[in-house]
Amino acid sequence: MDSSPASDLPVFADIVDAAERLKGWARLTPLLENSILNDQLGFRLIVKPECLQRTGSFKFRGAFNKISRIPEDQRANGVVAFSSGNHAQGVAAAATLMGMKSTIIMPKDAPKAKIENTKALGGTVVLFDRLTESREEIGERLKNETGATLVKPYDDPMIMAGQGTIGLEIASQTTDLGAKPDVIIVPAGGGGLISGTALAISETIGCPVYSAEPASYDDTKRSLEAGSRQSVPIDAVSICDALMAPTPGVLTFAVNARLLAGGLSVTDDEALMAMKTAMLSLKIVVEPGGAVALAAALTQKIDLKGKTVVVVCSGGNADPEMLSRALAI
Amino acid sequence: MDSSPASDLPVFADIVDAAERLKGWARLTPLLENSILNDQLGFRLIVKPECLQRTGSFKFRGAFNKISRIPEDQRANGVVAFSSGNHAQGVAAAATLMGMKSTIIMPKDAPKAKIENTKALGGTVVLFDRLTESREEIGERLKNETGATLVKPYDDPMIMAGQGTIGLEIASQTTDLGAKPDVIIVPAGGGGLISGTALAISETIGCPVYSAEPASYDDTKRSLEAGSRQSVPIDAVSICDALMAPTPGVLTFAVNARLLAGGLSVTDDEALMAMKTAMLSLKIVVEPGGAVALAAALTQKIDLKGKTVVVVCSGGNADPEMLSRALAI
Repeated sequence: MDSSPASDLPVFADIVDAAERLKGWARLTPLLENSILNDQLGFRLIVKPECLQRTGSFKFRGAFNKISRIPEDQRANGVVAFSSGNHAQGVAAAATLMGMKSTIIMPKDAPKAKIENTKALGGTVVLFDRLTESREEIGERLKNETGATLVKPYDDPMIMAGQGTIGLEIASQTTDLGAKPDVIIVPAGGGGLISGTALAISETIGCPVYSAEPASYDDTKRSLEAGSRQSVPIDAVSICDALMAPTPGVLTFAVNARLLAGGLSVTDDEALMAMKTAMLSLKIVVEPGGAVALAAALTQKIDLKGKTVVVVCSGGNADPEMLSRALAI
Repeated sequence: MDSSPASDLPVFADIVDAAERLKGWARLTPLLENSILNDQLGFRLIVKPECLQRTGSFKFRGAFNKISRIPEDQRANGVVAFSSGNHAQGVAAAATLMGMKSTIIMPKDAPKAKIENTKALGGTVVLFDRLTESREEIGERLKNETGATLVKPYDDPMIMAGQGTIGLEIASQTTDLGAKPDVIIVPAGGGGLISGTALAISETIGCPVYSAEPASYDDTKRSLEAGSRQSVPIDAVSICDALMAPTPGVLTFAVNARLLAGGLSVTDDEALMAMKTAMLSLKIVVEPGGAVALAAALTQKIDLKGKTVVVVCSGGNADPEMLSRALAI
């Protein structure tokens, strides 16, 4: 069941093409580092802050790459998507920019700010209960009723290619800095961001890429170790709402199984500590799920001594209560 | 007494030269905006986040521009500076990069993080009491004892030119965005940042530039209105520690009196609200003094309806307690 035709997988040229398409629409996020932090850690830590991306997370990249390719004659029917919040905002923003309607199916327990912002970006929000309802079924029904195009959160080659533009930027921006990354760590939910990024890195820098996940949602780590797609319990609990996909995607795992060096996981408290470091040392606001790669680096889940390490901070859409909690840790 | 020979003032070519010198040393900070916030405000708000600059504030620009010009034969004596914290870090970092010693005179009540970071960046810190001691006298004494070069916080043409590179970047980056600024608002302490920026803007975009200050440290506003340098009481109180210079500089005011459209001021609570908006909507951490221009825009101290407004968020070196206070407002 894990098999996927190789023709469905994105290739490097798709990422280069996505980068062209995103020019002038997505923001070129900078690379950030702090020399004091580097001295304390004993390695060079370079952060790619996708919290500064349009809509506050990397998700705009994939959504825009996908939605901007919808043929003219299908645009009037709009798009439908399901998301815990960041994909929701990316899809709503991209659809609105393309003059299209968007309907977004979101869990009732998503952060308030993510729900409100999705509406403000032009999306129509439909809430569902994560424990008793299937977002896939609701999405399928809405798609059939309206003729809308389903924009999947990760398991789509054009979504993966769009997120992969981050890998291209890391390659060119580290070259500009005169830095040569030894290790790259990227958060993994369904695996869209990391599969695209790993594909871009495999054809450019060529260094090891590790996934980072919450300890309770370590499905990519387990799957990499098992060699096949593994699931965590659907009712697992984590503060990392952005990373609560219980199973890797079919397409994303096909790429990740081939390209990733391994999977890392962090506790909620380690994610909160990383959020605090991001605020105080890098001056950026990162949400719990966005901070897991940074957390894995700060706690050195693998030996990083003396290395140049790039981590993606994938989003910053946290409620103020969560930021206060991180500051107080 | 306010007269200053025109030959002491920086000219546009000095800023262009500083930009060349800073290439590869200072970070090119991006422009940030949030479409939801823009819709709510009724104008387009573009933020230049210098909190993301090396050392967490714009101060590195001027310090590096100045220190990198110190002749070889004077470098062994090091540099001395006085600062509430951001200039301190900029000078310490720039001196260390140039292989020079730095001694920094800081007020005892500066944020802990600023004092600690100045030390971590290689600076030797000397603390003084803002109410009973003169930092200028201590600086003069240290300079005489050691032969160190004094790096003034603002009243120096090379410091002003270094900070002015922000204006050059705003001009080129807004052009890349296809945006044409109608108004630019910049925080003012001693006036180095805003004088350099206004000079760069006057030769590029040519739009009005306003200063923003804490209501209790509105010396630039008062001075612009009076047409001569005015002081606020030395014991005035503000949470904006970065902007507590009681009087505009001689050189900076000579430029500002000619180029600024006017002075704006904000309350401490307005600065805290702006910090909260910066964290939640722009995903950046801004300190109180760094947030006053953003606060002036958010509270529309002048009519901004329908306009394109650029604000500089000049620094992000706040203690966690101050960030928590902003989040709770």
